Amino acid sequence: MSEKRINVVFPDGNVKEFEHGISVEEIAQLISPSLKKKSIAGKVDGVLVDMSYQLQKDANIELIARDSAVGEEVMRHTAAHVLAQAVKRLYPSVKLGVGPVIENGFYYDLDLPESIGIEDLVKLEKEMKKIIEENHKVMRKELSLEEAEALFEEDPLKLELLADIPEGESLSIYEQGEFIDLCRGPHAPSTGVIKAFKLMNVSGAYWRGDSENQMLQRVYGVAFASQQGLEEYLHFREEAEKRDHRKLGKALELFMFSEEAPGMPFYLANGQIVRNELEAYLRGLQQKHGYEEVRTPLMMNKRLWEQSGHWSHYKDNMYFTDVDEVEYALKPMNCPGHMLIFKDKLHSYRDLPLRMAEFGQVHRHEFSGALNGMTRVRTFCQDDAHIFVAPNQIESEIEAAIALIDEVYGVIGFDYELELSTRPEDSMGEDHLWEQAEASLKRVLDKLGYNYRINEGDGAFYGPKIDFHIKDALKRSHQCATIQLDFQMPEKFDLSYVDENNEKVRPVVIHRAVFGSIDRFFGILVEHFAGAFPAWLAPFQVKVIPVSNQVHLDYAEKVKEQLLNAGIRVEVDHREEKLGYRMREAQMKKVPYILVVGDEEMKNHSVNVRKYGSEVSNQVSSDSFIASIKEEILLKKLQ
Amino acid sequence: MSEKRINVVFPDGNVKEFEHGISVEEIAQLISPSLKKKSIAGKVDGVLVDMSYQLQKDANIELIARDSAVGEEVMRHTAAHVLAQAVKRLYPSVKLGVGPVIENGFYYDLDLPESIGIEDLVKLEKEMKKIIEENHKVMRKELSLEEAEALFEEDPLKLELLADIPEGESLSIYEQGEFIDLCRGPHAPSTGVIKAFKLMNVSGAYWRGDSENQMLQRVYGVAFASQQGLEEYLHFREEAEKRDHRKLGKALELFMFSEEAPGMPFYLANGQIVRNELEAYLRGLQQKHGYEEVRTPLMMNKRLWEQSGHWSHYKDNMYFTDVDEVEYALKPMNCPGHMLIFKDKLHSYRDLPLRMAEFGQVHRHEFSGALNGMTRVRTFCQDDAHIFVAPNQIESEIEAAIALIDEVYGVIGFDYELELSTRPEDSMGEDHLWEQAEASLKRVLDKLGYNYRINEGDGAFYGPKIDFHIKDALKRSHQCATIQLDFQMPEKFDLSYVDENNEKVRPVVIHRAVFGSIDRFFGILVEHFAGAFPAWLAPFQVKVIPVSNQVHLDYAEKVKEQLLNAGIRVEVDHREEKLGYRMREAQMKKVPYILVVGDEEMKNHSVNVRKYGSEVSNQVSSDSFIASIKEEILLKKLQ
Repeated sequence: MSEKRINVVFPDGNVKEFEHGISVEEIAQLISPSLKKKSIAGKVDGVLVDMSYQLQKDANIELIARDSAVGEEVMRHTAAHVLAQAVKRLYPSVKLGVGPVIENGFYYDLDLPESIGIEDLVKLEKEMKKIIEENHKVMRKELSLEEAEALFEEDPLKLELLADIPEGESLSIYEQGEFIDLCRGPHAPSTGVIKAFKLMNVSGAYWRGDSENQMLQRVYGVAFASQQGLEEYLHFREEAEKRDHRKLGKALELFMFSEEAPGMPFYLANGQIVRNELEAYLRGLQQKHGYEEVRTPLMMNKRLWEQSGHWSHYKDNMYFTDVDEVEYALKPMNCPGHMLIFKDKLHSYRDLPLRMAEFGQVHRHEFSGALNGMTRVRTFCQDDAHIFVAPNQIESEIEAAIALIDEVYGVIGFDYELELSTRPEDSMGEDHLWEQAEASLKRVLDKLGYNYRINEGDGAFYGPKIDFHIKDALKRSHQCATIQLDFQMPEKFDLSYVDENNEKVRPVVIHRAVFGSIDRFFGILVEHFAGAFPAWLAPFQVKVIPVSNQVHLDYAEKVKEQLLNAGIRVEVDHREEKLGYRMREAQMKKVPYILVVGDEEMKNHSVNVRKYGSEVSNQVSSDSFIASIKEEILLKKLQ
Repeated sequence: MSEKRINVVFPDGNVKEFEHGISVEEIAQLISPSLKKKSIAGKVDGVLVDMSYQLQKDANIELIARDSAVGEEVMRHTAAHVLAQAVKRLYPSVKLGVGPVIENGFYYDLDLPESIGIEDLVKLEKEMKKIIEENHKVMRKELSLEEAEALFEEDPLKLELLADIPEGESLSIYEQGEFIDLCRGPHAPSTGVIKAFKLMNVSGAYWRGDSENQMLQRVYGVAFASQQGLEEYLHFREEAEKRDHRKLGKALELFMFSEEAPGMPFYLANGQIVRNELEAYLRGLQQKHGYEEVRTPLMMNKRLWEQSGHWSHYKDNMYFTDVDEVEYALKPMNCPGHMLIFKDKLHSYRDLPLRMAEFGQVHRHEFSGALNGMTRVRTFCQDDAHIFVAPNQIESEIEAAIALIDEVYGVIGFDYELELSTRPEDSMGEDHLWEQAEASLKRVLDKLGYNYRINEGDGAFYGPKIDFHIKDALKRSHQCATIQLDFQMPEKFDLSYVDENNEKVRPVVIHRAVFGSIDRFFGILVEHFAGAFPAWLAPFQVKVIPVSNQVHLDYAEKVKEQLLNAGIRVEVDHREEKLGYRMREAQMKKVPYILVVGDEEMKNHSVNVRKYGSEVSNQVSSDSFIASIKEEILLKKLQ
């Protein structure tokens, strides 16, 4: 009977022999009952399977923990079935669509005559909890297309799905209690595995995402391996909502949008101050790092974009216009303009590295459905630079670019992770140049000791790149800075310089952005700081509030003058409102410092300082307040 | 015989009686022989006539002095005939076109098989001088069309001109020596009146300016009442050529243009520094003057431009694009965007005046033939502001705007003249609002004691305006700043604020620009300063030149570091070139300060300073140099 035994290899390399046909669950149980209890699914030869999956031959096996990321996804899938089961119990006439897993949760699309409101979600949650308590075993069954069609004969949406399945493909259903669903799986072994979930929302959704189809109702839920996970998520969501830059942008009067130009930000006075500070900061830093700044036109002849390759690789994202009956494109990138500047002059090796920077306003088309506040727009200002280098300067310049970005992110207070993106399918240039470019980037990252992910096939069409993913205060990741290596553009524009031997040589170009899109970076900053910018960035840095206008207004204005002369952005709130009201409002506007001035302060030439977010206030001399805020601004302190 | 006498009124109101048929020349002679000698033509009842013109009835008379502006024009006309006469003598086969007066001179269009080169102009000038010395009397003769056609039967171009003259119109010819030309006149009494002229140039020109016609040769000349006038003009021209911002822009690497975007400036590193300084200066000043800065999209929906009136009044100068199949226009002005911002929020009278400024990049179409360096472009950055005011704030805000402009022009060192432009034909709005607006502008100008010209019909389509015409170093006039009063835009956008009585009231808008177009202003500045910018604007403020790189380079770099730390833009010229060569080059680049450092300077911690344009240099301590240049920059000194 030894033929009936199989060898199973575990992730640690251990090999064990088991009975042929043993299930994943049984293997876990044999190793330890606690392992079985902690597991929700298995991976057999890399394929995710149910705990009930039976091994028929030698295999590699891995157990998927309930609290792992993959384990949570399996559980969320089962939660979607539990939701559908609950809906069927409460709304027997429902016809089911699909119920996939999404980030943090799941949804189910329902065809139902009555409309489900937010208030109905409580009922549904209660029924789901009952199903979970009933702890139904979740069972997989394989069947033929005919059997499936018979089983779902009263479910037109499921029949539609079945009609699209290629003949001969194996079909499976999952059964839990009275509920059966067409599903590939895998699933949790029983409904009781679901420990923490919440229904969040209900909205309309076209069947299969096609606006030609009927509108269904989509119920969204989230689910986590633990109650703590759920609570953390709900807290995060609440925080994220409070920090939503679109809301804060309105409340703090930072920016607005108009129907007359969707996706194109209007900077209001407060927002423009923040933006100008960001630009001025980077401008100064770039000067220090040996960059020169240029400015190139917003539209250029179509033939230029053909030459650069944008025409064949980027046309669909571009806007066009006519100048004297010649087609022009609004620039989606600044590169070709910078190539023209480089080409306008003869260059020697002594000019290199030539670091050319521009705060360039670019336009890129996005579908209206994709637009989202400042983070997905149709026009933005790129803090773009192109560094023209001799081949032997590539790595030191990439290192210098990383150092510059690291400095900026340090000042803002962003941690970041790096990603190296390699050659995409739709790209230009010879293989050996791509390999050389990718190797250079890797070498620098390795030298600097960075950990980085490789993102295969996600480079620009002209070269590989290093992307910086910052982590904001809510640990959300945003791709911002980028460093791209480019052997193609110099070729396309036939760029050259004269080297030490008086020979014409092709330079290499490094594309680099620190903020990426200033507009998007601004949106991220608003959320990161929850609108409470550090003093150097804050639209107003100080609000002076006289206790009584009759008595203290003159002194308040004097303090204001003093601050203005020190270059501080300051306002006096001299409205005839209660002190408490004015203080609350200044806090709502997230002004870094509130200075209350009354009798005491007038007498002592002092101010009563309350820092944003603090519960206490201190009386200090106005001179020492000015000295300390000036230092805070100068050093760009975060607190 | 008393019927035969006529009364002649002189400009001073004196009346004299003369014989009927007396000529202008005879009247001048009767008054005084020197008056006759000083005069070149007359004005009889407002019509310019020859000195030989005979008065047939009572009339007002004025004598035109040879050295007056009008007198010079008459003389230039005769000079054109003298040119044609000289050409006929040297090239007997020539067929003459037309020979009008232009600014400072004249030209004549010639149909000639041989081509006239610059070198031939000397010969022509010599022949003209001969004709002038021959001092031919210039005589007018009136004749019929038939007589004229007979006279010019061998001059096909003249016959063409004759064919276009309406029947019955009186025709005149002028005769001087052997030369006869078809001409309306008037002319100088004799060729000897021409005292100072020069032929400048020869170029191709289509007959009657129509590219369908044959190409003629056009010889240009200038002529003045005195040799001094001619010399001043030639000097001015030479100066203007040296200062040509297109040449200097290239030589000083300030900006460039490309065939890929005609009329759209590329700012090179040096130019961008100047531009950033101008922007930063105005930004700071605007902040001080209570402006807020905003930023609005570069393109907006067509319907917005219809609403603003730009569509019907400005469409031909606009560029268009499509966004999701909806027509958008690139903004030619910033007004509509600012109206949307104002409208986005409820306003109270307490918010007014609301001064909204933007450095807004606009696009306006110009024909390619009209483009000229930075002074006539297709895209430029306008330092635009819209001041939203209550009706009773109009005049104080116009006053404040004038004060701001006056401050900026004072710093740059520009004198200016004012022009008030009134309602144009193609405009919108009710008459009484226009009258009210024009009256407000006049009242402010009168109150401030400005002299100003009225430019009838040259206002914007939405309101009257005050234009500032600056005088540059060559006394050329350029229209730059503008203040425009607008009752229309608030109407079109249905703007309102809540007044003291809680009622909705329409604000008035003041449009205002200080530089106008930053790009054009920059071009004017380049010419005004002949590229030698004052230190605060100069791309590089200091060039440090070590006498010997072997010995003094370290010290030069130390000085540079010191300057950099003080925020000074500085470079070290460490090329292995002779000291004199490096100094000449720094002077050619018009760097405000050259610091030469050698043994002496190293020993004394000093620098040897040579200011741009100065022949002498001084040794001063590096600290005291830094202190003085810092002050010069801070105070934006002109010297």
